Amino acid sequence: MEGLTVFTEMLAAEVLKTTPTKNKAALREAKRGILDYLASAFAGREDAGVLKLLHAIEAEGGHPVAALIGQNKRVNRRQAALVNGFMGHALDYDDVHSDVRGHPSSVILPALFALASCREISGKRFLDAYIIGVEVMARLGQAVGTASYQKGWHNTSLLGGVAATFAGARLLGFTVAETQNAVGIAASQAGGLRVQFGTEMKPLHAGFAAQQAVQSIEWTQQNFRGIETAFDSPIGYLHVYGGKEADEAVYSALAEDWGKSWRISAPGLWFKRNPFCSAASHGADAALELAQLHLDIATIKKIDIVFPPNGDAALIHTCPKTGEQGRFSIEYVVALALLGQPFTLGNFGSTAVSVEAEKLIGKMSRSYDAEHIPDAQAIPKGRFTIVRITLADGSIHSREVSVPKGSPQAPLTDAELESKWRESAPNQHIAEQIMEAIRGLENAKASELGKWL
Amino acid sequence: MEGLTVFTEMLAAEVLKTTPTKNKAALREAKRGILDYLASAFAGREDAGVLKLLHAIEAEGGHPVAALIGQNKRVNRRQAALVNGFMGHALDYDDVHSDVRGHPSSVILPALFALASCREISGKRFLDAYIIGVEVMARLGQAVGTASYQKGWHNTSLLGGVAATFAGARLLGFTVAETQNAVGIAASQAGGLRVQFGTEMKPLHAGFAAQQAVQSIEWTQQNFRGIETAFDSPIGYLHVYGGKEADEAVYSALAEDWGKSWRISAPGLWFKRNPFCSAASHGADAALELAQLHLDIATIKKIDIVFPPNGDAALIHTCPKTGEQGRFSIEYVVALALLGQPFTLGNFGSTAVSVEAEKLIGKMSRSYDAEHIPDAQAIPKGRFTIVRITLADGSIHSREVSVPKGSPQAPLTDAELESKWRESAPNQHIAEQIMEAIRGLENAKASELGKWL
Repeated sequence: MEGLTVFTEMLAAEVLKTTPTKNKAALREAKRGILDYLASAFAGREDAGVLKLLHAIEAEGGHPVAALIGQNKRVNRRQAALVNGFMGHALDYDDVHSDVRGHPSSVILPALFALASCREISGKRFLDAYIIGVEVMARLGQAVGTASYQKGWHNTSLLGGVAATFAGARLLGFTVAETQNAVGIAASQAGGLRVQFGTEMKPLHAGFAAQQAVQSIEWTQQNFRGIETAFDSPIGYLHVYGGKEADEAVYSALAEDWGKSWRISAPGLWFKRNPFCSAASHGADAALELAQLHLDIATIKKIDIVFPPNGDAALIHTCPKTGEQGRFSIEYVVALALLGQPFTLGNFGSTAVSVEAEKLIGKMSRSYDAEHIPDAQAIPKGRFTIVRITLADGSIHSREVSVPKGSPQAPLTDAELESKWRESAPNQHIAEQIMEAIRGLENAKASELGKWL
Repeated sequence: MEGLTVFTEMLAAEVLKTTPTKNKAALREAKRGILDYLASAFAGREDAGVLKLLHAIEAEGGHPVAALIGQNKRVNRRQAALVNGFMGHALDYDDVHSDVRGHPSSVILPALFALASCREISGKRFLDAYIIGVEVMARLGQAVGTASYQKGWHNTSLLGGVAATFAGARLLGFTVAETQNAVGIAASQAGGLRVQFGTEMKPLHAGFAAQQAVQSIEWTQQNFRGIETAFDSPIGYLHVYGGKEADEAVYSALAEDWGKSWRISAPGLWFKRNPFCSAASHGADAALELAQLHLDIATIKKIDIVFPPNGDAALIHTCPKTGEQGRFSIEYVVALALLGQPFTLGNFGSTAVSVEAEKLIGKMSRSYDAEHIPDAQAIPKGRFTIVRITLADGSIHSREVSVPKGSPQAPLTDAELESKWRESAPNQHIAEQIMEAIRGLENAKASELGKWL
């Protein structure tokens, strides 16, 4: 290709030379991010999909190099990235980033754990690579905008594979040219369709992306060559998936003020209190407030749920059949809250939706209000959910939430996050060892954490 | 997802119940297709990229189940699909299909060889699966139209992974529901960017797609579940990659007259005489005709190369630096022809373009004529290339080609195809054994062919 610019090269150079662990807020949030990812992955370690993937891996074979989280088993790097990515996102319990419109840590960390296995890598370098991975993924999300998501892609995989490849290049100390090459290989594997939401394939997309990053890094290590200009070409990644020319605005989203602050802490990761899609969190909190009124369920005539236009794009199930589909159903989440059912992992599993919940869901309808002005702190920007109950006597009870608990504007405290972790960890001993390893990670080897997976 | 139709299910049912080997023309062309794929793969067996992939596979490990073509080595099914896909397309010497705008056999056959390994599968079933894979890929190409290619995807991988998954489901006798599930998994892995043309990544896309098919099949065998409606949903594969709603026209391209004739023989595969992009074939034949005039190169003032608009989209290199880039450069191909240099594998390798060729390329320019009406038999429809030489004395010599040698309208004879195969085969013994195995394939086990790879 002729006439290319050098943006991919510039970005690779930035990625390789910055050390974001110098930023205290970023360092703190990276440690919280690792703990939250491990909580999500350990919580998902017995998901039915894990066993299926393990069977497929047994049939493949491979050198046992990298740990499968909570399985007491080692597989090859690619397989570890795939399964640990799946596990982290299996319950939709892992972190979200509003710039990404998707899940960064369940892609980036599995790739980094896999690549760091059996290698002498410092904890500080691991943390730097992770923060940079989140940074690139968030900036890619801003550069691509809402176009890719609206079109039908799952940003977690579409953006995650490329971002995790940048992170992997930083972890292993690639040259600029090697980084460009690896990112091009990742761009050519990007994919993942949003239509899979509500199935086991959605979490597998996180695994796909982590696997793509490991492959892109490993093939580059073997000097397998592709284009070095994945972000520059008019038929490159940004154009094909962002649906627009890679213009000044796109480049500025990707590179402006690089290193001034880090998106892992500003705006920050959103750690989930509940194992369902974050787009349902606003409505969940509103419904929990309404549940405090102890309304008689039998007297409910109808329930209106109001979003900004497209605010419910991820919530693809209006009549879920199972708890698993219910992870993507505002109706199911609101029904659980009003029926006094807890948001436990069990209520979002493969069992059928209860008759009680189904009946309540039958009274619900969604609508959209483009005029309504939500809280200025709303996350994502402009987002709100109103849950409005009309009783048989005509009385109306309504609650609106724009800033759900767990989001960066109402973050989980360290104690709340540690409590999420303790509930997921296989036992008290491992829980404490991993927390201690994370606490001192920047002054230790990455393997000090890796050995507990 | 609510409100879906049942098209994916219908197509899966058709795929599973038809036996296209009953059609003599399809059967004959399938056997020619296997021979041509093996010629291309054996010719590519020492490509530098193969060795790099082998190193990466050594590091991964895996059970030795499936043969790597011409390597005297077995690896796991996924790895075999990846490398055999790469090898088939490494030299751009493999078949093309005008409905696909890409390369069917280097995706479908590696997936089928991998899946058939160590299994009792009849040669007839293998041939049926292959014909059906080509059929689905060609119909997908028609359904998606030119949109995906223009946007920036490489159809070989974008369409190939899904098509090879249908073929794999047919090979292993999946149920309709299993087939739907596997196709959904494949749709969620689809990708491959055209910007990689001219690098080692382009042939790897064929390997990607074959690998995706094997994964989609194997995960489905483990009962890993995704959507069963990849082609039905308004945010499914056809919409996301075809850029339009899956309407009647799309469905009719995919299913109408299923089984009446088979696209492997009507319009048919295009077997390449030369190891470069098929889009350069018309210009190559025109330049070879001009070379017969024995013009004095020193007297050439300029060379105009005229295409229909976008007819040169795949020919991304106007100033190639290497023979490898020259596979995607009409300028390089025309220069070789006029300089009397043969279209050998060596002239399309990693060595630099000669000073002589570079000088001649400097006199060339491309233009586009939307009004020109080519031969009614043109392949693809409406395609032509005019090579027009203006000498220093003002005289003009011009040739136009619309139907290049090797295309279905001017097919290689069996003898020509066998000669291509014999040039690529590692030795006379294997050449004869494989030809014999293919000749009797429909009455033997698939392993009778597989044992010679």
